[in-house]
Amino acid sequence: MSSMHLNHVKITDPFWLHYMDLIRTEMIPYQWSVLNDKADIIIEKERDADYIPSDKSHAIENFKIAAGLKKGHHYGMVFQDSDVYKWLEAVAYSLQQVPDDALQKIADSVIDLLAQAQETDGYLNTYFTIEDPKRRFKRLYQSHELYCAGHYIEAGVAYYSATKSQKALDIACKLADCIRAAFGDGKGQIQGYDGHEEIEIALLRLYEVTGNKNYLELSKFFLYERGKNPDFFKDQVKADPNKKPLIEGMDQFKASYYQVHKPVLEQDTAEGHAVRVTYLCTAMANLAYLNQDEKMLEVCHRLWDNIVHKRMYITGAIGSTVIGEAFTADYDLPNDTMYGETCASVGMIFFATNMLKNERKAEYADVMERELYNIALSGMALDGKHFFYVNPLEVVPEYSKKDPGKSHVKLTRPAWFGCACCPTNLARLLTSLDRYAYTIHDQSIYTNLYLTNQSNIDIDGQKIRIEQITNYPWEGTVQFSIHTNQAVRFSFALRIPNWSKTYSIFINGERHTGKIVNGYVSLDRQWNDGDTIVLELDMKIHLWTANPHVRSDLNKVAVQRGPIVYCAEGKDNGSDLQLIHFTEQTKFQYQFAANQFNGVGIITANAEKMKIDSQWEQTLYREAVKQEFSPITLTLIPYYCWANRGENEMLIWFHKK
Amino acid sequence: MSSMHLNHVKITDPFWLHYMDLIRTEMIPYQWSVLNDKADIIIEKERDADYIPSDKSHAIENFKIAAGLKKGHHYGMVFQDSDVYKWLEAVAYSLQQVPDDALQKIADSVIDLLAQAQETDGYLNTYFTIEDPKRRFKRLYQSHELYCAGHYIEAGVAYYSATKSQKALDIACKLADCIRAAFGDGKGQIQGYDGHEEIEIALLRLYEVTGNKNYLELSKFFLYERGKNPDFFKDQVKADPNKKPLIEGMDQFKASYYQVHKPVLEQDTAEGHAVRVTYLCTAMANLAYLNQDEKMLEVCHRLWDNIVHKRMYITGAIGSTVIGEAFTADYDLPNDTMYGETCASVGMIFFATNMLKNERKAEYADVMERELYNIALSGMALDGKHFFYVNPLEVVPEYSKKDPGKSHVKLTRPAWFGCACCPTNLARLLTSLDRYAYTIHDQSIYTNLYLTNQSNIDIDGQKIRIEQITNYPWEGTVQFSIHTNQAVRFSFALRIPNWSKTYSIFINGERHTGKIVNGYVSLDRQWNDGDTIVLELDMKIHLWTANPHVRSDLNKVAVQRGPIVYCAEGKDNGSDLQLIHFTEQTKFQYQFAANQFNGVGIITANAEKMKIDSQWEQTLYREAVKQEFSPITLTLIPYYCWANRGENEMLIWFHKK
Repeated sequence: MSSMHLNHVKITDPFWLHYMDLIRTEMIPYQWSVLNDKADIIIEKERDADYIPSDKSHAIENFKIAAGLKKGHHYGMVFQDSDVYKWLEAVAYSLQQVPDDALQKIADSVIDLLAQAQETDGYLNTYFTIEDPKRRFKRLYQSHELYCAGHYIEAGVAYYSATKSQKALDIACKLADCIRAAFGDGKGQIQGYDGHEEIEIALLRLYEVTGNKNYLELSKFFLYERGKNPDFFKDQVKADPNKKPLIEGMDQFKASYYQVHKPVLEQDTAEGHAVRVTYLCTAMANLAYLNQDEKMLEVCHRLWDNIVHKRMYITGAIGSTVIGEAFTADYDLPNDTMYGETCASVGMIFFATNMLKNERKAEYADVMERELYNIALSGMALDGKHFFYVNPLEVVPEYSKKDPGKSHVKLTRPAWFGCACCPTNLARLLTSLDRYAYTIHDQSIYTNLYLTNQSNIDIDGQKIRIEQITNYPWEGTVQFSIHTNQAVRFSFALRIPNWSKTYSIFINGERHTGKIVNGYVSLDRQWNDGDTIVLELDMKIHLWTANPHVRSDLNKVAVQRGPIVYCAEGKDNGSDLQLIHFTEQTKFQYQFAANQFNGVGIITANAEKMKIDSQWEQTLYREAVKQEFSPITLTLIPYYCWANRGENEMLIWFHKK
Repeated sequence: MSSMHLNHVKITDPFWLHYMDLIRTEMIPYQWSVLNDKADIIIEKERDADYIPSDKSHAIENFKIAAGLKKGHHYGMVFQDSDVYKWLEAVAYSLQQVPDDALQKIADSVIDLLAQAQETDGYLNTYFTIEDPKRRFKRLYQSHELYCAGHYIEAGVAYYSATKSQKALDIACKLADCIRAAFGDGKGQIQGYDGHEEIEIALLRLYEVTGNKNYLELSKFFLYERGKNPDFFKDQVKADPNKKPLIEGMDQFKASYYQVHKPVLEQDTAEGHAVRVTYLCTAMANLAYLNQDEKMLEVCHRLWDNIVHKRMYITGAIGSTVIGEAFTADYDLPNDTMYGETCASVGMIFFATNMLKNERKAEYADVMERELYNIALSGMALDGKHFFYVNPLEVVPEYSKKDPGKSHVKLTRPAWFGCACCPTNLARLLTSLDRYAYTIHDQSIYTNLYLTNQSNIDIDGQKIRIEQITNYPWEGTVQFSIHTNQAVRFSFALRIPNWSKTYSIFINGERHTGKIVNGYVSLDRQWNDGDTIVLELDMKIHLWTANPHVRSDLNKVAVQRGPIVYCAEGKDNGSDLQLIHFTEQTKFQYQFAANQFNGVGIITANAEKMKIDSQWEQTLYREAVKQEFSPITLTLIPYYCWANRGENEMLIWFHKK
């Protein structure tokens, strides 16, 4: 059997480079100043919750105190450490794309600080080290100890991969070993798991980089143990003499919030906190791959299908309710009271990536693309310094201000959050797009994302380079050229996105007529140096209909072009966007506007707007009247651009006549 | 100037007598057993709130403890006393319609108990007498002390009117005097008010029955003082050395929750807790009438218009959000996450009644009728023993169970609530319909409600009787006959409901062609014994459209016949009610079904139901598809009958093609 290995993907894509540069030059330094309490910002609570500390971040300060370098108390959420870890992970990916000595020096100093804060037995958590050492691992449903540990391990692995920092990896292994000593089926060990999945993902990554099977086994233990004893958390609370909760206001949540309502192998719907679900699935999918675990893969299938086919918004947003930031029920997808947390969509990208390791199905990459171009980008302002936690599909500023059921729907992106998971998650995602572009299966390369890049690939020791050039997502032409010293045989599989009704493929200028299998057209042949492949996707504007079980979207349509979902904003179209109707005569026109939103494709359409006659001014209900309409020219912008021009209305689903 | 006075309205209406009998024979004895903890019931929290005590009522027991007859602690909400008072008020009205010695004896014993629980200075409140005497009037934003006092005063006035019990009235006056001593602009007096309006209504009723102007002045003080110092509540909390709140979870609410965000004269939109707003308006409208207070009347106009023309559901429900059980913003009327508390609609009936005292405008009676036939009746099960707090317009059982944003929407009526305001409010309303049937203005009788009754009226000392016979709300013919010893001149004004497109009036068989002025046709003439008036209203089935600003109802219609709003239930029409569409061809047929729901009018219609093809089973979004429809026969039942046959879907607003 031959071997094929993806060595390095260098992203040079103008669309993404803009964001990656923004993250490198703006977001990473900015987050660093926030973590050090040096940024002059207002920290916003992601929703009305008194228990969220929001005076400052204090995250680096916490480590200094834990390391004994300073005196003081821990401040912030019990999982404040993870902000630093996710920042560090983003730095690692950024350094891999663009080396930067000054930044690496800062990151090295953080590693040094963490090493000092780590206890001698490997334990690392500033809250418990500073405030509550006796409660270590005793309140796992709220403590986020393993969650934070997992985020460090991911960061450590990434930083080691980028810089070969052995120290970063050592901290990770020491920490994992400490956890391994404490948890398991053995005598005196804790037969349990964390309230927030993450360690399971991290341990598998640590296994992938170290080859140490113990980490794979520990991840497997956590996954298989989860939900076996549905009273594990309750029993821990009972046994803890200290009754003070670690996070206020969380006692209302049921077992399903933590995915412990039944053993994971028996779970068949996505329940509870959406981010937790996607992290659980990410780990399960990787375990299924690494361990050839068919049962785990089956669960992943069930949960994937449930999320993607019954509980996901057209933007890729997940989580229908703010209460518990959670899934609710099949087809319960309100557009205006929803949550759609940025982190949950980032989690779906992780889940999709690991499903692609298991299976050659473009559906996973389709979802990854949907999340990336819509929710991930929506999560960040165009300035790279403001962030959304919640990503709604319909916004009326007055309702967000006056209806407490909609008050979690922010109208503009705040600078930072008391619970700051989303900005750092975005940073680590968008700096590592090279990890998502391709998947290798045996002797085949599968394209997941279309973006300009140069990839170095080893095939049985032979080094080849594939260059991808595209103006995606605005244009549908993607060109690949193969650079190799000698002819080489491999299969190159092109994903045909589910939104592309038609496609054309040309190999060295000649039309190829392959069939789509599982969403891919595979080009399996001998490739010579200079061979070119051109893929042309359908960039027509298409209207989409939601499943009629989705009450909020019935008799409505959404506009999509390529992977981009469009929305209307009040700034362009006035208020009362719900009055806009598409008709049989509505024609859509696309134009690239180089000067708007750093350059985006804008859509205009001749639509109709329902008139509100003067009789309505003082009337709520009238006998069924024939409504009058006026013609309007509607302007649609990419969903991810919304709320970059101040507070205003926004809408994705439009009525049709 | 001549005088006209409505002496007694004896209700003999078959539709309403059913309910009044149910209340007399089932609800009043049942509530009595609940108040005495002798009913074998499950007490439900009206929503997920740990702070609501729900093991038992304990309300009578609280009085026994306060009276020193028993030892123990207060149990229940801080306003638990009001359950007893509202029950007592219902008993008073019931006795007025149907004397009942045994029931009166029980009520007398309650009066005796209250007299014993009343402190020597007139103060009456079991919570503060038993648990917290030092905090009397010190925590008014939560204490409900004046709210409870008001409910007693209303009960005392009603009981005195029904039975001439001086003792009941004396308790009320003593209590009012105690409050008058404590509150006011004077030295050492509290310049403030209760967090929940009610005392203002009650004091005006006490003034009406006693003629004691002090009570009118005190009510006026409370109304004019309200919101003048927006920090009054905060100042009280600051001054109270005891920091324990009286009700947990209420600190999140803003000043507008209590209508103290500005002086009432400056308020122009209905803000905050919906019941509080309607109670405030009820008092303001009566003060405007009794004191000829034009400014107060202007505020009433503004708030009435804001509620009725911008913030009310077609059923009459008000309160768009469960959070604070409150108003939100103009046209923000979601059908599935709303509150629509029964008590708030009862409050609207009170408000409308007092507006009718000020002005001869049928709009007030139209709203009263809408509230009565839809929300008030919806608040109670057909067995008279189960009650709704929340009255939604769209229900999906699975969503109520799985979506915490909809979990306050109960699927069937619980037996009793930890916070039991609604059942007792219904009891006192439905036993006193005689108070709402007519309004007298100078020499005119205005009909508000159409229901079979005999009314005795004094006109300048001459006694006449007007008999009204109708099979309303199922039939639109209302016949009045005048019984008088001698010819008498007065104006008889017939309300033409806003849903009645056409009407005919016959006087002694001859068609009358009067014009509608402010919703009434006035028949001003000399009346002779035996004269008859026949009014025929339009009982055709009409479709209604909501104001296009209401996003949830856009492109939808609701079905109404007479005053009754109709709904579809899953029991009759299967699931996925949102798929039902009306078309141009849809015809509606009405039939009275004597055997269903104790006899109601049922509507059937040939509608169409959108098909869900098999492709949708595993798909959430597809390129815009032409939807297929199947013809169906739709069955609609009166909204108020919903949820009497177990859990199932329900819908009021239907799509139209």
